[in-house]
Amino acid sequence: MQLPNPISWTPAGAIRLLDQTLLPAEERYLVLDSVDAVAEAICTLRVRGAPLIGIAAAMGVAVAALAAWRRGNGAAGPLGGMAGLEVVRQAVATLGATRPTAVNLHWALRRMERRANRAVNLGEEMGPALRAEAQAIWDEDRAMCDRIGALGAPLIPAGATVGTICNAGALATGGIGTALAPIYHLHRAGRSPRVVVPETRPLLQGSRLTAWELSRAGVDCTLITDGMIASRLRLGDVACVLVGADRIAGNGDVANKIGTYGLALAAKAHQVPFYVLAPTSTIDPAIPDGAAIPIELRAPEEVAEWRGVRAAADGVGVWNPAFDVTPAGLVTAIVTDRGVVPPGQISRLMD
Amino acid sequence: MQLPNPISWTPAGAIRLLDQTLLPAEERYLVLDSVDAVAEAICTLRVRGAPLIGIAAAMGVAVAALAAWRRGNGAAGPLGGMAGLEVVRQAVATLGATRPTAVNLHWALRRMERRANRAVNLGEEMGPALRAEAQAIWDEDRAMCDRIGALGAPLIPAGATVGTICNAGALATGGIGTALAPIYHLHRAGRSPRVVVPETRPLLQGSRLTAWELSRAGVDCTLITDGMIASRLRLGDVACVLVGADRIAGNGDVANKIGTYGLALAAKAHQVPFYVLAPTSTIDPAIPDGAAIPIELRAPEEVAEWRGVRAAADGVGVWNPAFDVTPAGLVTAIVTDRGVVPPGQISRLMD
Repeated sequence: MQLPNPISWTPAGAIRLLDQTLLPAEERYLVLDSVDAVAEAICTLRVRGAPLIGIAAAMGVAVAALAAWRRGNGAAGPLGGMAGLEVVRQAVATLGATRPTAVNLHWALRRMERRANRAVNLGEEMGPALRAEAQAIWDEDRAMCDRIGALGAPLIPAGATVGTICNAGALATGGIGTALAPIYHLHRAGRSPRVVVPETRPLLQGSRLTAWELSRAGVDCTLITDGMIASRLRLGDVACVLVGADRIAGNGDVANKIGTYGLALAAKAHQVPFYVLAPTSTIDPAIPDGAAIPIELRAPEEVAEWRGVRAAADGVGVWNPAFDVTPAGLVTAIVTDRGVVPPGQISRLMD
Repeated sequence: MQLPNPISWTPAGAIRLLDQTLLPAEERYLVLDSVDAVAEAICTLRVRGAPLIGIAAAMGVAVAALAAWRRGNGAAGPLGGMAGLEVVRQAVATLGATRPTAVNLHWALRRMERRANRAVNLGEEMGPALRAEAQAIWDEDRAMCDRIGALGAPLIPAGATVGTICNAGALATGGIGTALAPIYHLHRAGRSPRVVVPETRPLLQGSRLTAWELSRAGVDCTLITDGMIASRLRLGDVACVLVGADRIAGNGDVANKIGTYGLALAAKAHQVPFYVLAPTSTIDPAIPDGAAIPIELRAPEEVAEWRGVRAAADGVGVWNPAFDVTPAGLVTAIVTDRGVVPPGQISRLMD
């Protein structure tokens, strides 16, 4: 099973990043060696997917710390202490301002900052310590994906067709994905379900990314437009729906890619189970319900244009929220690395 | 209020057609002087919208009859009789095979064929008779649009925002549209609602056509992607939804552009009234319910590409139905030129 590697370290300690905006036409890798370059890549969605954004941001902090540590190495010895901490704080501030909705980003940045503080307190060398922490975040994410895959797989009936939206696969995580993890888990065992993939306008993560990585892995998939979702669920061949999440509120409301809420309404209308699959780092117990989740509004051109080709009349107003909120009542269960729970009991996992 | 003229006669008796596939970038008119050219324009959606397809097909039959009549005129006198009838029958067969879902097409063609038979029986000249019949179909459609506008307008609260999908406006009819007719009716009176327009993938009739004709007419509109519909209705600012129809079954089930069913589910979830606006020629009492309406499946490239730019991985399967069926239970009322009725009573209008 061939899965893409959306992110890795270069031998020199920079980030090698698959530019996801160019897929599927071109598989081009960028080398990012500064916090600003990582922030730009997150803002422009060269790297996207809540878990992968967290990993990229952590690696971005490590890149900054490593660079400062090496600079310091030549002159005043290993950069630790307050100067190193200031570099980390600036990196965290820059990367934290990139995208508001996904909580993994902030979770990963807080964790990097805590590790930096600990390095100062223990007199550790900041660069290697933060690189190791970023690597740990990535490794844990990969393991979480595997657990989500194993826990989610039994929810999919044998020989089933499943639905999803956007991309919550290998291109969105450090491993085999969240929503797509049970599919890859079953595929490895020779029992892959078929997948119905909505294209996910405006940025087409479904057709560009999910259809690409599933086909590449040898999973049978069928592409539809977002407006076909309800009609497809009515056909009766979709056994369940698997989606990722960018943030889960304390009451189980789920922020995910725009279109998820409509998909959940259609699933409800046709009694199709609707599962949300996400690492526990996606849960934000500080947010009581979905209404309090900040929803990113993006540029009108994403809707008015299509891959740079103008589609709409000039001057037409556009509303372009990147995410929507699916109320807990429409969610059959939430599958995390710590277990499968009804949405109302999600906060239990955070104890 | 400036509305487009999507179709007209040329002085020579051919059809002058606005090529809607090029909008909004280019406003180009084609001259169609044969049945094959009209059939091609219908198949490729240069002309679309159930009522306008009916008008175009009727005009196409007239063009064929007029051409044959003129040819005959030079030699054996006015072409009437069986030779003229054969020309009409061939035109009806060609045009009837273009698109399966919209019933107005078949309604208009049957009417043209009946008129041809009558011309033979009465010894009338076929060409002028059929041109007059096509013109009558167009004139009646324009009047129907006006009545739908007048009957639908009171359903829209003052100062409201309304939702729609696809294009059921001036570009889809011989007049001010069906779904958009009440909006133009109110706009003429200086009380235009604002309109939320889903782009309507795959062919973007919402962004390319509806946003274009509404802006041009001076109506305030906001473009969204189809996946944003449910989220937008949840916002609470959309007072009602107005959609057209391609065919209405005897029980009130409605075939319309793909995406309409999901819009209806979202409207139901948010208690937003959902109105279907269509001429009575859209009602097909011979079809008992929506399951019996033939749904056109179109080419995969429409989903996998846009304007020749590939979006999806090569070789990915595509499901591309052009229409869906909204069950009568989700329809608040059907607005026709003969009155506003609950969907369950639609067949009453056919008495």
